Amino acid sequence: MSYAGKILRVNLSTGEIKTEQLDMDLAKKFIGGRGLASKILMDEVDPKVDPLSPENKIIYATGPLSGTNAPTGGRYMVVTKGPLTGTIASSNSGGYFGAELKFAGWDMVIVEGKAEKPVYLSIHDDKVEIKDASHLWGKTVFEVTDVLADEFGDGKARVACIGQAGENLVKFAAIMNDKHRAAGRTGVGAVMGSKNLKAIVVRGSGKPTPANPEFTQVVRQKVEIIRQNGVTGQGLPALGTKVLDNIINQHGAYPTRNFQQTMFEWTHEISGEALVEKKYLTKNRPCFACPIACGRVIALPNGIESEGPEYEAGWAYGANCGVNDLIAICEANDLCNKYGIDPISAGATIACAMELYEKGYLPKEDLEKGPELRFGSSEAIVYYTKAIALREGLGAKLAEGSKRFAEMYGHPEFAMHVKGQELPAYDPRGVQGHGLQYATSNRGGCHVRGYMISPEVLGVPQKLDPQQLEGKPEWVKLFQDLTAVIDSAGLCLFTSFALNLDDYRDLINADTGFGYTSEELLKAGERIWNLERLFNLKAGFTKADDTLPKRLLEEPVPEGPQKGAVHQLHALLPLYYKVRGWNEDGVPTQEKLVELGLA
Amino acid sequence: MSYAGKILRVNLSTGEIKTEQLDMDLAKKFIGGRGLASKILMDEVDPKVDPLSPENKIIYATGPLSGTNAPTGGRYMVVTKGPLTGTIASSNSGGYFGAELKFAGWDMVIVEGKAEKPVYLSIHDDKVEIKDASHLWGKTVFEVTDVLADEFGDGKARVACIGQAGENLVKFAAIMNDKHRAAGRTGVGAVMGSKNLKAIVVRGSGKPTPANPEFTQVVRQKVEIIRQNGVTGQGLPALGTKVLDNIINQHGAYPTRNFQQTMFEWTHEISGEALVEKKYLTKNRPCFACPIACGRVIALPNGIESEGPEYEAGWAYGANCGVNDLIAICEANDLCNKYGIDPISAGATIACAMELYEKGYLPKEDLEKGPELRFGSSEAIVYYTKAIALREGLGAKLAEGSKRFAEMYGHPEFAMHVKGQELPAYDPRGVQGHGLQYATSNRGGCHVRGYMISPEVLGVPQKLDPQQLEGKPEWVKLFQDLTAVIDSAGLCLFTSFALNLDDYRDLINADTGFGYTSEELLKAGERIWNLERLFNLKAGFTKADDTLPKRLLEEPVPEGPQKGAVHQLHALLPLYYKVRGWNEDGVPTQEKLVELGLA
Repeated sequence: MSYAGKILRVNLSTGEIKTEQLDMDLAKKFIGGRGLASKILMDEVDPKVDPLSPENKIIYATGPLSGTNAPTGGRYMVVTKGPLTGTIASSNSGGYFGAELKFAGWDMVIVEGKAEKPVYLSIHDDKVEIKDASHLWGKTVFEVTDVLADEFGDGKARVACIGQAGENLVKFAAIMNDKHRAAGRTGVGAVMGSKNLKAIVVRGSGKPTPANPEFTQVVRQKVEIIRQNGVTGQGLPALGTKVLDNIINQHGAYPTRNFQQTMFEWTHEISGEALVEKKYLTKNRPCFACPIACGRVIALPNGIESEGPEYEAGWAYGANCGVNDLIAICEANDLCNKYGIDPISAGATIACAMELYEKGYLPKEDLEKGPELRFGSSEAIVYYTKAIALREGLGAKLAEGSKRFAEMYGHPEFAMHVKGQELPAYDPRGVQGHGLQYATSNRGGCHVRGYMISPEVLGVPQKLDPQQLEGKPEWVKLFQDLTAVIDSAGLCLFTSFALNLDDYRDLINADTGFGYTSEELLKAGERIWNLERLFNLKAGFTKADDTLPKRLLEEPVPEGPQKGAVHQLHALLPLYYKVRGWNEDGVPTQEKLVELGLA
Repeated sequence: MSYAGKILRVNLSTGEIKTEQLDMDLAKKFIGGRGLASKILMDEVDPKVDPLSPENKIIYATGPLSGTNAPTGGRYMVVTKGPLTGTIASSNSGGYFGAELKFAGWDMVIVEGKAEKPVYLSIHDDKVEIKDASHLWGKTVFEVTDVLADEFGDGKARVACIGQAGENLVKFAAIMNDKHRAAGRTGVGAVMGSKNLKAIVVRGSGKPTPANPEFTQVVRQKVEIIRQNGVTGQGLPALGTKVLDNIINQHGAYPTRNFQQTMFEWTHEISGEALVEKKYLTKNRPCFACPIACGRVIALPNGIESEGPEYEAGWAYGANCGVNDLIAICEANDLCNKYGIDPISAGATIACAMELYEKGYLPKEDLEKGPELRFGSSEAIVYYTKAIALREGLGAKLAEGSKRFAEMYGHPEFAMHVKGQELPAYDPRGVQGHGLQYATSNRGGCHVRGYMISPEVLGVPQKLDPQQLEGKPEWVKLFQDLTAVIDSAGLCLFTSFALNLDDYRDLINADTGFGYTSEELLKAGERIWNLERLFNLKAGFTKADDTLPKRLLEEPVPEGPQKGAVHQLHALLPLYYKVRGWNEDGVPTQEKLVELGLA
């Protein structure tokens, strides 16, 4: 099987480095990656802990399929308590780092405590060292990655690190690997920063061995399904995630100017199609073992070469800030990669500040001579992104995220967040199921914990009426549980446009030999979801936190196909709790916990 | 005296390289630089020649003070027949190249013919070679400069070169030296391109010796005057030429959206003050022997490091295109330096295209999927600047300049030019004298051949009413003639905020030993002006070309301090001709020519 069978535990306070055996019973129960790491976090960390204190832990976890040639098998997960939300935080990333960690013989790395001075963790197969990082502190992601790639003399080491944003404890700092791939959301980068851990560099000489010799055959079959699928075989390869700009805009759920509108009149200037037509896109760049290759390399007319932006990032800085300058949007995204910031939260926090400024609640003097925070200001999105990373001027406040920022200015209603995390690029009023998923996601406002856009807009695996409520709680539960499986297995969520539960079962079984039924596998996903929920409940979250911004519940959509709609969370949430087997306060029943083996 | 006494003549068609002696009588009559080179051009080149044919010549000329420690004594002049206007073209640049050419022992370099393949000219004191430049063709100004700086092994060679714009015969391509200094206007870079001459690289080991031992004492005195002056001692060192943004805007002569308005509501976002307050400015960078140091080094939030923009460039891409994004403005200017383009003509041509697009005369399909040409589009100014340099898509048409571009689309009235060259950053309706100078400048729309802004707005040397007509022709003549002296001596026009005619006389006499009276010196300036006029008349220009765009003559200023004004050229021009000693068709009288020794 492709588990490495070993866990690396590093205590930065004491300098202790330990090897532990993977508990295979737990592995079967929680699969790996997100699931298994969440279980360990739950067992070892008090959910009430300060996320930026030495008592918090941060776990870098591969799944059983990470490092195999299963399609998209290059992913890993970062699990910790998140500083942006205070919830359990798990953030998924692609690239090559996760696979390399497996090659080095580790299923996961648990980092505890806090180093006295900046350090990085050097992993060369079994040789693990905590090394001085004083020469790397204050450096960008790109600089650190270039330096550490040569850690073992061959220029081929893989690096996951933080930029200045993580060092500066920006609440939505990301962990970046392979320069442009990100464990982007929930501020996991700030946790690294709080531990004085600048980077992890890894080089491995091993190779995981799937349990079943037919694994290669199974992989070949699933790759073919992915290739034949319209989304994964054509849409994503051609335009990346930015294939969505025009689709979501035409659906009337493309949040514009901090969700004041739902269609952006300049979408044609900033869409995935525009990125190609303007010739900013130079080529695709795949992650490890990925047949989709949605990553995109760009060269801007101003000479900047970078990657991205993804749909969400492009929207956050584009429509959501009212900006129609695709160069500036790409630049702001590039700065996020360079400094290690989540572009969704950064763009959305700037959009929130723009609304506060335009409405007169954010006084001009607080800008400290920076550009005016008007919707449409291409300069502002670039300027304040840097300011956030370096906590300069107003950036020090923006670095706290939109919820805290709007509260500072006395108008929390202008922060478009759930549980403190900024909402992504789909207006819940136009996709009722997706809105329910926002409200109930265990890591706050998030689209990749149950991507209801797939059925509600794209018609995959079947077309659902986006305004219909009936059946949505069931769909949301299914998607949330299935996503937990995919995240835990070490695969990319994008495979789910093409693969179904049985396909994942085939891949995971051929790899692990666990012989899950589809039902058992999905139950493992449900187990993971409920475990995360328990963490949050113990951290102090309640039913009251399963909500959406007031605007989305009360202000009808002003235009377009979804005109007049509000989000009907009040109707959906009780049904969701019921479908989940939770009581009316959103707490899992004893019966449910016993069923899931979590009692 | 500080003349080198030698002229280098290079024929690119034959490969012949000749040394000629400087004719000292001619030198006294035409001073040097612009004056002497214009005399040589007039004697050797048919004014009716195609500017981009091998029959045109291009002259790189120092003045007697170039390479001395006279304040700003680092300048040189490029003189040729210009492709943008068809007039005599002379374009002045600072930096270090001009001084180095003098150190190498040359007063000027005359380049004739056309090389079969790309070449560059290598000058190391007396050792001069025409060398293969195939490895440099297609490269940017910055790349070429970096390569050739090491031509003589010490990394200290000085380079004047063209970027891709010059190669592509962009009608307003510049010659760039020391990376960011430009012989910017009139398209002299295209003449280099037409000759397959990519660069001139020079290293000199000599030093000019002023005639009078008291030269150093005179210099010290003039430097002190410059240091004590408000403009040259404070304004320019603090904010560079961008000190003017707020001043000209408040005066109501800051052309906005292709001269449709005269005040820009976002000036505070793009001004010289903003460049400092936003911390884009990192330091000043002086040219050779300059006590003013108006050059500015910038670092943008997106990571781009560059120089500038100057006031005119910032305006052309800013107010004139309705753009309020200072980052994008700086980027567009950086691209001009990188590709070798005049940012005034580039920005103004884009502004013209924006008006044509917004008014419906430029169809969307002609944009070939580029960004929409709307006023305010920060993306468009960056995108189309690159497109111009590489003549890609619509860029191929924009590269012809606003006059030809507007004619292609059937609406020449939207091109804000004189004699084919785009007008700089002062609306003539708000400065009557300056408008007269635009209309009569020998190289087309130009502000540095008689900078009437100085008295009409800044009050230097005395404040004139900008709307008053009386006395303006006399002032314009004086400023034009004095500027010809300064350009020919090898000094920077900016010294004239502080120095007067007698000061220049002192410097030039101490250097040359010619013992000019102030009157004689100014007469030399007048001689140069009339010589240039004769060139243009022989080229086919007539009184009808001494005009301004219809908009500025007929549409009253819509707002601000100059509200209601039009330019009163009809009243001023006959008086100017009279003051000049020209007949009513604008042709110098025989009497005037005799007086000037031009008969």
